[in-house]
Amino acid sequence: MKYQYGTVTKALVGELQAIVGKPNLMIDLERIENYSHDETSKEEYAHTPDLVLTPTSALQIAAIMKLATRERIPVTPRGAGSGLSGGAIPLFGGIVLSVEKMNKVLEIDEANLTVTAEAGIVTNELNEQLKSRGLFFAGYPMSLETCFLGGNIAENAGGGKAVKYGVTGRYILGMEVVTPQGDIVELGGKVTKDVSGYDLKQLYIGSEGTLGIITKATIKLLGVPKVASNLLVPFASAQEAIAVVPLIMKQGIIPTSIEFMDRSSIELTCSYLNESLPLEGVGAMLLIEIDGTDEQTVERELIQVGDLCSEQGAMEVYIAEDATTRERIWSVRRNIAEAIKVYSPIQSLEDVVVPIASIPLVLPRLEQLKAKYQVSIPCYGHAGDGNLHATIVKDPQMSLDDWKDLEPKLLSELYAFITGELGGKISGEHGIGLKRKGYLKAVTPPAEYQLFKALKAAFDPLYIMNPGKILD
Amino acid sequence: MKYQYGTVTKALVGELQAIVGKPNLMIDLERIENYSHDETSKEEYAHTPDLVLTPTSALQIAAIMKLATRERIPVTPRGAGSGLSGGAIPLFGGIVLSVEKMNKVLEIDEANLTVTAEAGIVTNELNEQLKSRGLFFAGYPMSLETCFLGGNIAENAGGGKAVKYGVTGRYILGMEVVTPQGDIVELGGKVTKDVSGYDLKQLYIGSEGTLGIITKATIKLLGVPKVASNLLVPFASAQEAIAVVPLIMKQGIIPTSIEFMDRSSIELTCSYLNESLPLEGVGAMLLIEIDGTDEQTVERELIQVGDLCSEQGAMEVYIAEDATTRERIWSVRRNIAEAIKVYSPIQSLEDVVVPIASIPLVLPRLEQLKAKYQVSIPCYGHAGDGNLHATIVKDPQMSLDDWKDLEPKLLSELYAFITGELGGKISGEHGIGLKRKGYLKAVTPPAEYQLFKALKAAFDPLYIMNPGKILD
Repeated sequence: MKYQYGTVTKALVGELQAIVGKPNLMIDLERIENYSHDETSKEEYAHTPDLVLTPTSALQIAAIMKLATRERIPVTPRGAGSGLSGGAIPLFGGIVLSVEKMNKVLEIDEANLTVTAEAGIVTNELNEQLKSRGLFFAGYPMSLETCFLGGNIAENAGGGKAVKYGVTGRYILGMEVVTPQGDIVELGGKVTKDVSGYDLKQLYIGSEGTLGIITKATIKLLGVPKVASNLLVPFASAQEAIAVVPLIMKQGIIPTSIEFMDRSSIELTCSYLNESLPLEGVGAMLLIEIDGTDEQTVERELIQVGDLCSEQGAMEVYIAEDATTRERIWSVRRNIAEAIKVYSPIQSLEDVVVPIASIPLVLPRLEQLKAKYQVSIPCYGHAGDGNLHATIVKDPQMSLDDWKDLEPKLLSELYAFITGELGGKISGEHGIGLKRKGYLKAVTPPAEYQLFKALKAAFDPLYIMNPGKILD
Repeated sequence: MKYQYGTVTKALVGELQAIVGKPNLMIDLERIENYSHDETSKEEYAHTPDLVLTPTSALQIAAIMKLATRERIPVTPRGAGSGLSGGAIPLFGGIVLSVEKMNKVLEIDEANLTVTAEAGIVTNELNEQLKSRGLFFAGYPMSLETCFLGGNIAENAGGGKAVKYGVTGRYILGMEVVTPQGDIVELGGKVTKDVSGYDLKQLYIGSEGTLGIITKATIKLLGVPKVASNLLVPFASAQEAIAVVPLIMKQGIIPTSIEFMDRSSIELTCSYLNESLPLEGVGAMLLIEIDGTDEQTVERELIQVGDLCSEQGAMEVYIAEDATTRERIWSVRRNIAEAIKVYSPIQSLEDVVVPIASIPLVLPRLEQLKAKYQVSIPCYGHAGDGNLHATIVKDPQMSLDDWKDLEPKLLSELYAFITGELGGKISGEHGIGLKRKGYLKAVTPPAEYQLFKALKAAFDPLYIMNPGKILD
């Protein structure tokens, strides 16, 4: 099916400018170039929009969507542009609608333990404002220093604490959404249970901006855990490290995080950060965090997990209790993606997720793929969730054409294995976006794919809302 | 809009019998009468189906739905019939499709901490089978002794442990669904994070059988907490009791449950069960459960909550640590609905939910409504979730006509207050079904209601799947 979109005429630009005001409309190429891509590789995916709008209210967004509906202009919503699946790329041109100027905390409600904020607030900024009250939003992703709340919700982002706390969606009690038709809809509220009609809120969570634009959200807060402590556990081989993960999860202790980093991920990142970690003979490391309300309980659990790691062949078990050491280690973990990108900007950062007991089966297959396709695949990720960020890296020597030939073959093979033999999924937290939509179609049974299409058509019959994402 | 449905002809009955086999088709009035109602009052809501099918596999259900689609016959899925909103009532006749014969546990996967079971298993039976392995399904409702897993999911049931563990939906990792068109779709799996396409699983959770029939599910299990203990705390007035609830929630302790029971709920139930509780001067009681892995921590938290109750005017704080006493008290709580029903079968069991800080504002308004309409409204429920089961009871002396006049007026007034002033919702866990669909329309903004309708039309364009539920 091919959709005909309208043209962004001079008259339309005038109407849009009347809605948002001159400072919130960008049309010159130099400025809008920044909005042509996200964190996927620019060479492969970038598209330039016709113009960029930075509205300051839901009312403005509603007016924009009414115009877009009238003229059939594609609209691509955008948060911080920190996405990893091309979700914010304006594939068919038209309007990029950035929520960057809608970045206020609207209410902190301590009696109900909620915060209401606009979609454009940086996630870390939100938690900074909550810190003095001893509260936090537990559902944030690893990119918290740059990403926006709206993007977190649209992608249902995971993150470093998901083993214990779950992902973004669990914490979203309410949201305001502007539909493709330009209606402003308030979903949910501050209640913690609700079965009054279809759960549209859950549907918008993770819908990647293809059903509407999230403009604000009400988030359930938790008290900041009084104690948190970390183990850094090196193993001689990656396989030994990953094999311990399901054993930890079966012990009855629920760690906050179990992160896995293979040797090449750590090496690239230490060199990028000018940091050093003890790496002699190390094949991979686990970074395990445990938090709680009670120091003794946390310590006991930490020792129990540490002992298990030792029994399973850990080379060493380092405890990082003080905040500085913890921050140093987590900084390595958080910067891996960036470090690999600096090494080779053309790459495919993967996000496969498998049942936890199957996670030891992923690495041997990655080894086979490395050998078969002669590429390096540094691997790290949220092992405690069964979620690994294997990163297929274009060797700086390889031509772009060769890469474009290799990438889909390797990915098809990997995804078939993950979704077939292991019962896993192709994306745990980064989303489908532009990058994986062909693969999603390939691995999704036709009846389910048909429901995806019916859903999209029901909410956005003109296909103007972030078209070309998730679905083909 | 009026839909024309086909007729259940003799030939069609023959075709259906060929699918399910003779023992799984009921057509004589005496037997199908049992399938004409759920736990809502029969006098007000019952409808008799044309026939009842008890298929034994998803394949049979798929074949039934293909026939129903061809002939445009309404199909009403049914679990245990323990629903409280008329969801399983065949409003337009046609087929009642009961999953009662699909009641097997298919797999307990200890490595992944999951269980896969058919939709017709009794929830308690599922937990019984898990007990010996030290595991449990945390998302079950209060009716666990009768309700089916499929119904729990279709209603996104809450329950006694939701304050700490959340509701059913949080634990559903995967499900098998048969669509109105007769396709069998597998959603999710055993992964704990997944953003691969729209989250159809979440959409089916709580959709009350209006989008398809849930035939099996894969559930995330937790380890049974090693320690659990309860407080039973009487207060002189209901208002004093309920006012403590948000204070407990703000302390940083997360109890497993905070249940509220007013005096008349307790009296009716004690008399129904031939049980006695110390009730002199008591206006209401809180039943608070705390569980955990560590005896000392649970005890410390219990004392902290008990002290808070005392400071806030509790008459007494009873600790029930042994299993027998705990079961006695919880049995009173679990039997309230049944006891009130025995007292007066014609009633409206309500399920309003409000932000936790607003819960003290609900009772004064109920007092006003009692006085204005001259009815009794015993009240109990999951106070820790902001969810109260105020039960508007027809006085045995009142005529059915007078009741039918009174009920909608009182409910409209209550719902307007809950959804307007308090930012609450009309149902926290029982669902909309037949009983609340008019009220849902009244309290839902048109743009949101339009999305509900678009969603229903996208999944079930012939309106054969549990028609007349949720939407009008």
